[in-house]
Amino acid sequence: MRRIVILGSTGSIGTNALDVLRRLRGSFSVCALTAHRNVELLRRQAEEFSPQVVACGDPDMADHIDLPGIKVLWGSQGLEEVAALPEADIVLNALVGAAGLTPTLRAIQAGKRVALANKESLVMGGELVMGMVAGSTGQLIPVDSEHSAIFQCLQGEGRGQVNRLILTASGGPFLNWGPEDLSAVSPQQALAHPTWEMGRKVTIDSATLMNKGLEVIEAHWLFGIPTSRIEVLIHEQSIVHSLVEFADHSVLAQLSLPDMRLPIQYALTFPHREPSPQDPLDLAQVGALTFQRPDEQRFPCLQLAYDAVELGGTMPAVLNAANEEAVGAFLTDEIGFTDIPMVIHQTMGRHSVVAHPDLAEVLAADGWAREMAKSRISLCQKKAQG
Amino acid sequence: MRRIVILGSTGSIGTNALDVLRRLRGSFSVCALTAHRNVELLRRQAEEFSPQVVACGDPDMADHIDLPGIKVLWGSQGLEEVAALPEADIVLNALVGAAGLTPTLRAIQAGKRVALANKESLVMGGELVMGMVAGSTGQLIPVDSEHSAIFQCLQGEGRGQVNRLILTASGGPFLNWGPEDLSAVSPQQALAHPTWEMGRKVTIDSATLMNKGLEVIEAHWLFGIPTSRIEVLIHEQSIVHSLVEFADHSVLAQLSLPDMRLPIQYALTFPHREPSPQDPLDLAQVGALTFQRPDEQRFPCLQLAYDAVELGGTMPAVLNAANEEAVGAFLTDEIGFTDIPMVIHQTMGRHSVVAHPDLAEVLAADGWAREMAKSRISLCQKKAQG
Repeated sequence: MRRIVILGSTGSIGTNALDVLRRLRGSFSVCALTAHRNVELLRRQAEEFSPQVVACGDPDMADHIDLPGIKVLWGSQGLEEVAALPEADIVLNALVGAAGLTPTLRAIQAGKRVALANKESLVMGGELVMGMVAGSTGQLIPVDSEHSAIFQCLQGEGRGQVNRLILTASGGPFLNWGPEDLSAVSPQQALAHPTWEMGRKVTIDSATLMNKGLEVIEAHWLFGIPTSRIEVLIHEQSIVHSLVEFADHSVLAQLSLPDMRLPIQYALTFPHREPSPQDPLDLAQVGALTFQRPDEQRFPCLQLAYDAVELGGTMPAVLNAANEEAVGAFLTDEIGFTDIPMVIHQTMGRHSVVAHPDLAEVLAADGWAREMAKSRISLCQKKAQG
Repeated sequence: MRRIVILGSTGSIGTNALDVLRRLRGSFSVCALTAHRNVELLRRQAEEFSPQVVACGDPDMADHIDLPGIKVLWGSQGLEEVAALPEADIVLNALVGAAGLTPTLRAIQAGKRVALANKESLVMGGELVMGMVAGSTGQLIPVDSEHSAIFQCLQGEGRGQVNRLILTASGGPFLNWGPEDLSAVSPQQALAHPTWEMGRKVTIDSATLMNKGLEVIEAHWLFGIPTSRIEVLIHEQSIVHSLVEFADHSVLAQLSLPDMRLPIQYALTFPHREPSPQDPLDLAQVGALTFQRPDEQRFPCLQLAYDAVELGGTMPAVLNAANEEAVGAFLTDEIGFTDIPMVIHQTMGRHSVVAHPDLAEVLAADGWAREMAKSRISLCQKKAQG
């Protein structure tokens, strides 16, 4: 019986993970659940899965969860305590945003397997996290479908034999739109993602290709491959989740119907595979898989992500924070769709990189970038009004 | 330095293997080469690669190869001696036809790694060969692009976790032809294969889909998967060489531009991969990969192969021998294209299966089937003339 902590159990990844665990009750038990705000759902989940501890955003929420035999923690301290829970074997980090970084570090330090769905852990703190993995018995297994695909393709292969990682991208709803049309995109149009159902922030990131840019940074850290050997390929059907090209030019790819439960389950059961209730892939029914190169002119966020890794140190954290602020401003109609990369670019241009940052320096860069991005956003607004 | 024997060094696989070995001279040496008829080329190859021994079809040919320090053997006895050469680490079996079975058994028995390109070893003698693999230190690594793909996808995975093997097929030149057109196909039309360059017999097998049927039988033995869980998928671009679906419905696929040197090199260097001079795969340039189900009505050879495994024992050897005779008769215009499956079907229908056959029984069934197929072929001719 393996014992699991789910950080962020009420979000899209968290609820899918609990769906997986309902079917794997014979081999897995839930020892902790956490939610930031959705205390009602967290309470129902706790009733169903009987964890020994739950954690939520603040003490008022904690008062609402009063279940016999379940300890209730709160705030970032509660989250960190749960991430390093002595009884746990696996920590699924499905937190959203920068709040996910410290719990990842705590869990790795405590020797857990971290099933990682929190992008920011590696985007902001890639060097810190991988340094801690190297120095502990902790383990990092990706949950993102793209990184899970690469991880699966690499099993049984020597790491030194990788030529290229090829991350696939659905391309988002504006794949074939012209530059003028892109500048007039509304939040409503951007939120209509063709294939995967996911949160609003991730959906916009998917439309700008920043989502893929962040994944390039994650892949760089996770697999120790320079970004010059990580490519992005547009693949609208979202069937081929990513590919690895080896030294001999043999390419391995991982495919499935799009369903987050598959990579979640794999991260929990690895190196074993358990049966799945999802439909098997029928390629004859799919008919055709198409591929094209991303257009970096129309979707400059992708190149910004490559630039951030190249500049190194705190710059990826700055890219990430500026992007979060810009996407937030786009969703509330403060700036246009094509202003998103502009805000990020301007914020990055004003940042003085700290090389090999510690956690405090990473978080400081994140805070600085948010303030800087906000000031760029208000300039955008003034220009639009003027 | 690993020492290699190439059985059938003057054929398509053999010459490609020597091309691979020219680039890997620092890590591999050639200790024996064999040819059935092409003694001129064998002599030139021996001059270039300086093996300690060569073998050819008969003593007259052997007299033509007079090179200092190179021992010359001949006939099936010479082939078997070379297959078990004490100095060799790896035996590449690139022989064509039933003559490949005994050398495979000898090499496995002698504890060699057998890089297997000879289909008949597993189609005729699957149970014998795999029984010998299980009881020796010998090893079987497939060279066929499809089986190499599956072998690559299985690395690092538990064998009990395979749901399905999916073999891809280019579909051959008559993929979309109607039944009437198929009956009028000429050998010249059938020999114009769209993607791979290969021998005449294999090209016709590719057009009838018998090639894929034989590969289903090979995959069944090689990977220990029942044929009910081995599927064939038409994929005209020949980029995805085959796929494996696992218990969790995750699918791994191996892709590359079509080039036999890749699976040959992999079989020699496994578990390592060496750089390759071939172009890397550019999926954006390929654009689309298409898939469709094979039409078993128009291409009945595929089902005949499944039937042969189901009937078991000597029946796959009968299928294979009847097919060889029928394809030979088609190539010399004795029978029509659609007579090929008919001759095989009639031959199989007249065979009394010997379960768990030994080598002599397999070879006897092969001989019986050739005679029976010939008599069915002459009946076809009489009918056509009548």
